[in-house]
Amino acid sequence: MKQMIFAAAMSLQFAAPSAHAANGDVAVYGLDQGQRRHSALKQINTGNVKRMVPVWNLSLASNHAQSQQPLVIDGVMYLPTADATLAVDALSGRQLWKTSLNYAPDVFGVVCCGILNRGLAAHGGKLFRGTLDAQLTALDMRSGKELWRAKLQDYKEGYAATGAPLVANGVLISGISGGEYGTRGFIAGFDPDTGKELWRRHTTAAPGEPGGDSWPGETHKRGGGPTWLTGTYDPELDLVYWGVGNGGPWNAAYRKGDNLYIGSVIAVRPKTGEVVWHYQFSPNDPFDYDGTNELVIADLPMDGTRRKVVMQANRNGYFYVLDRATGELLRANPFIDKITWAKGIDMKTGRPIDTDDTKKIRASLTMEQAIDVWPSALGGKNWSPMSYDPSSHLVYANTLNIGFPYKTVDPEYNKGAFYLGMEFTSLSWPENGNRGYLKAIDPVSGKTRWQVPSAIPNFAGVLTTASGLLFTGAMTGEFLAYDSKSGRKLWQFQTGSGIVGMPITWERNGRQYVTVTSGVGGVYTLFSGDERLKNIPTGGSVWTFALMDQ
Amino acid sequence: MKQMIFAAAMSLQFAAPSAHAANGDVAVYGLDQGQRRHSALKQINTGNVKRMVPVWNLSLASNHAQSQQPLVIDGVMYLPTADATLAVDALSGRQLWKTSLNYAPDVFGVVCCGILNRGLAAHGGKLFRGTLDAQLTALDMRSGKELWRAKLQDYKEGYAATGAPLVANGVLISGISGGEYGTRGFIAGFDPDTGKELWRRHTTAAPGEPGGDSWPGETHKRGGGPTWLTGTYDPELDLVYWGVGNGGPWNAAYRKGDNLYIGSVIAVRPKTGEVVWHYQFSPNDPFDYDGTNELVIADLPMDGTRRKVVMQANRNGYFYVLDRATGELLRANPFIDKITWAKGIDMKTGRPIDTDDTKKIRASLTMEQAIDVWPSALGGKNWSPMSYDPSSHLVYANTLNIGFPYKTVDPEYNKGAFYLGMEFTSLSWPENGNRGYLKAIDPVSGKTRWQVPSAIPNFAGVLTTASGLLFTGAMTGEFLAYDSKSGRKLWQFQTGSGIVGMPITWERNGRQYVTVTSGVGGVYTLFSGDERLKNIPTGGSVWTFALMDQ
Repeated sequence: MKQMIFAAAMSLQFAAPSAHAANGDVAVYGLDQGQRRHSALKQINTGNVKRMVPVWNLSLASNHAQSQQPLVIDGVMYLPTADATLAVDALSGRQLWKTSLNYAPDVFGVVCCGILNRGLAAHGGKLFRGTLDAQLTALDMRSGKELWRAKLQDYKEGYAATGAPLVANGVLISGISGGEYGTRGFIAGFDPDTGKELWRRHTTAAPGEPGGDSWPGETHKRGGGPTWLTGTYDPELDLVYWGVGNGGPWNAAYRKGDNLYIGSVIAVRPKTGEVVWHYQFSPNDPFDYDGTNELVIADLPMDGTRRKVVMQANRNGYFYVLDRATGELLRANPFIDKITWAKGIDMKTGRPIDTDDTKKIRASLTMEQAIDVWPSALGGKNWSPMSYDPSSHLVYANTLNIGFPYKTVDPEYNKGAFYLGMEFTSLSWPENGNRGYLKAIDPVSGKTRWQVPSAIPNFAGVLTTASGLLFTGAMTGEFLAYDSKSGRKLWQFQTGSGIVGMPITWERNGRQYVTVTSGVGGVYTLFSGDERLKNIPTGGSVWTFALMDQ
Repeated sequence: MKQMIFAAAMSLQFAAPSAHAANGDVAVYGLDQGQRRHSALKQINTGNVKRMVPVWNLSLASNHAQSQQPLVIDGVMYLPTADATLAVDALSGRQLWKTSLNYAPDVFGVVCCGILNRGLAAHGGKLFRGTLDAQLTALDMRSGKELWRAKLQDYKEGYAATGAPLVANGVLISGISGGEYGTRGFIAGFDPDTGKELWRRHTTAAPGEPGGDSWPGETHKRGGGPTWLTGTYDPELDLVYWGVGNGGPWNAAYRKGDNLYIGSVIAVRPKTGEVVWHYQFSPNDPFDYDGTNELVIADLPMDGTRRKVVMQANRNGYFYVLDRATGELLRANPFIDKITWAKGIDMKTGRPIDTDDTKKIRASLTMEQAIDVWPSALGGKNWSPMSYDPSSHLVYANTLNIGFPYKTVDPEYNKGAFYLGMEFTSLSWPENGNRGYLKAIDPVSGKTRWQVPSAIPNFAGVLTTASGLLFTGAMTGEFLAYDSKSGRKLWQFQTGSGIVGMPITWERNGRQYVTVTSGVGGVYTLFSGDERLKNIPTGGSVWTFALMDQ
């Protein structure tokens, strides 16, 4: 009897992580393997969220964009900034260790859209992250000590690693940024223990490879196809879905053809990098319509059955639903009001139906006059991820209502400089003044169930909970809670700088917490010229909230 | 009748500031003209403080030391950082304007003890502040526009203006920092409307002036006497009390004599700068015992009557009570446990009674071996101000329990470099590990009523309230509330970076708020080598708190 109790105590003590702790943890980017950003936690609900208060704050000692998603594992929060990685006692907010990256000063000159990092992967006692100087590093979770470092590419050419890496079937996979610099995109697989590169899959196909004939001449070599957000793994099918970005230069007449795999999703085997299937959202993409946005896995009721799908709210304004085993296009419906580049998606061919404007743009190496195109290069939705609630079968996303005047010019390549072949000088604003909408979207129809307009668009991720709450943040600093059923605002708190990060919720010792980073920056602050952000200070801190009366 | 209502409405609308708003405001450095840092507000009390929560935060977009005291006037909060001035909507935390100072890069190289600013003065619709490049500026309160700028001294020699200026009898008075750089201290009076300098009073006396014979040769020219904190004004006596800092170089044998007015308080006429009386705490000061600490005005019951006094917890470890009309020394009692530099203060002469160690140090231009001296150059209390509660007649102060090994060496003057003549390499730590104590001190006896030890000493100001609360902050980031009667800790909140600022409390529309800045830095972080601060990140934000259920 005594022995049995002892054995039970031992198993409790040494079971790591315990089932209970594991349930309340946030161990992966996207909150779960399907990147659903939907939590089963219910302690904080629509009735009591008004009693939610900050329980601690931690300065990140950084005034760059804070666009990261923290992880919480066994009571420790881990998060990256652009130039450091931190571990924090999750209950007290006490910093346990901080490991700085010491960049060469020229690193900051070749980053297109913000000095930032989006997240970490955790696996086997190690943390993995990309760096602004285009490396992949592993750190010991307990000490923060760097264990290995692998070179992804040469940062001086415009490459950077800002997205969270992904561990799939024991392989560590990283994408790469730099699609505006005349780079050539790829994803690459590494041994997480040693940093040894196992495979590299370029996302612009070379002559002789499948898709190689979709590029004229040598254009694939600077053809873009960056992979700067994080892919999604389906262990059942052993497939990793990874979004591929814009073509390079933006000027599509310079690279006539479909230009595989720009503006696509590729489904690859994590062990080999083999492309099992692909679907191209934006063939020959002239508009910087990255296909990089988060790919959310769902079992979606449609057409009288449940389909195993992967979904994306694409920058091009269409909401795509694909069969995730085969890549078959199931739905492609507009999720924003104004799309001028296409009349729709041909469901037989899977190809967009160009408007006359787009036909002209694709055909013109240079243009005399700009044509107004909607959505803009910022997309109908930018990178900040949506959530998917498997009970309502709705997605919740911060969308954009912005166009841009489009005029091709001769592209000229200069190492480490923007290589667009397009005169990117301004954006076009909506007449009603609402540049963004937080939307509940039916992924099957693309229809909006409810929406909340905002004059300054949101660039924060969305988190929903099983208790009917939706959390997101504003560029003006308010952390926001809504009723996910109605879009009614229930609560807000001013966090001191703009929110462009990704909220998470987690549980420890029976108490539910919500965490988000604050620190304005990123693509909208850099390119919008929005005067209303003049009095939004830069900043950098992590906020953790919980109910007051606990 | 209609006309009367209209007139009443008009008077309400245009009465600025209204009596009500004025009562809840914090219009001056020190909270009141006597620098008592004691508030009459009672809504937040010892019973309900546990329900105090953050209501907003604002990033200061700065990772330097945040050692400023905000002002709150008519619903607007004003505060400086080292390199900018801000106005903030006090209820929402929304930044209204921010005016940056654009320093030459070499400015940051000649600041001894932290890139910081301690506060503003407000008068006649203008804000006044000092700058790190030793200028005094005036800003329009509504727009933040700079109205004038006056040069105090040449920053390249080590001068800087970090303390809050003071308006007294219509004259704007500023002190100066730089006592470690072989500078010559002063206070100067300005016309607040135009920035015209009205008078300048040097704090090291030149030959031929009163006190001029207390300096050998030309030593007064680099003799220190900085005036880097804010004086206190008594309108009844029309006297401004201003503390004067250390001698330069620290090596006292180099400048034999009392060296007036180093280590002193001077009482001056604000209109002319005339010195009406002075008292020297530390004649010939070898130990960096600045006399700059806040001078608190009180009507203190002592010797069977009420004395109009000015009080100071001096860096040298003694608590001084002076008659504020005459400068007569009334009390000088130790307020810390370990003082090795003096045996006491001779109440007849007002002079310290040197120990043999101090006699030796004063006599030795160079020394072979260091002598351990307590308190250290950081003082028995550093700059962070105490509060005085006129109902308990107690002061509440963050005190230090730190010594230092003292060894004179030949002083060598180099422009813009430390000019100490002393080998300042380390500090001596107490055996019991408690480097600081928050203390309630009886100013008449110097005795401690209660104390709270801390391993890492506090460098934040103290605020007390009529409801029996004491607020202060920790270098490790916790904002703290205590019962001022007992020293019992009642509440704390982790603000994300260390607190080295000065809390205030204010009222608006019937609700009481408490505000403090967070952002570690300053003299202890620079010179202590305290490894425990390794995981305290730099930061910069303003926090405002209130009770939850309102």
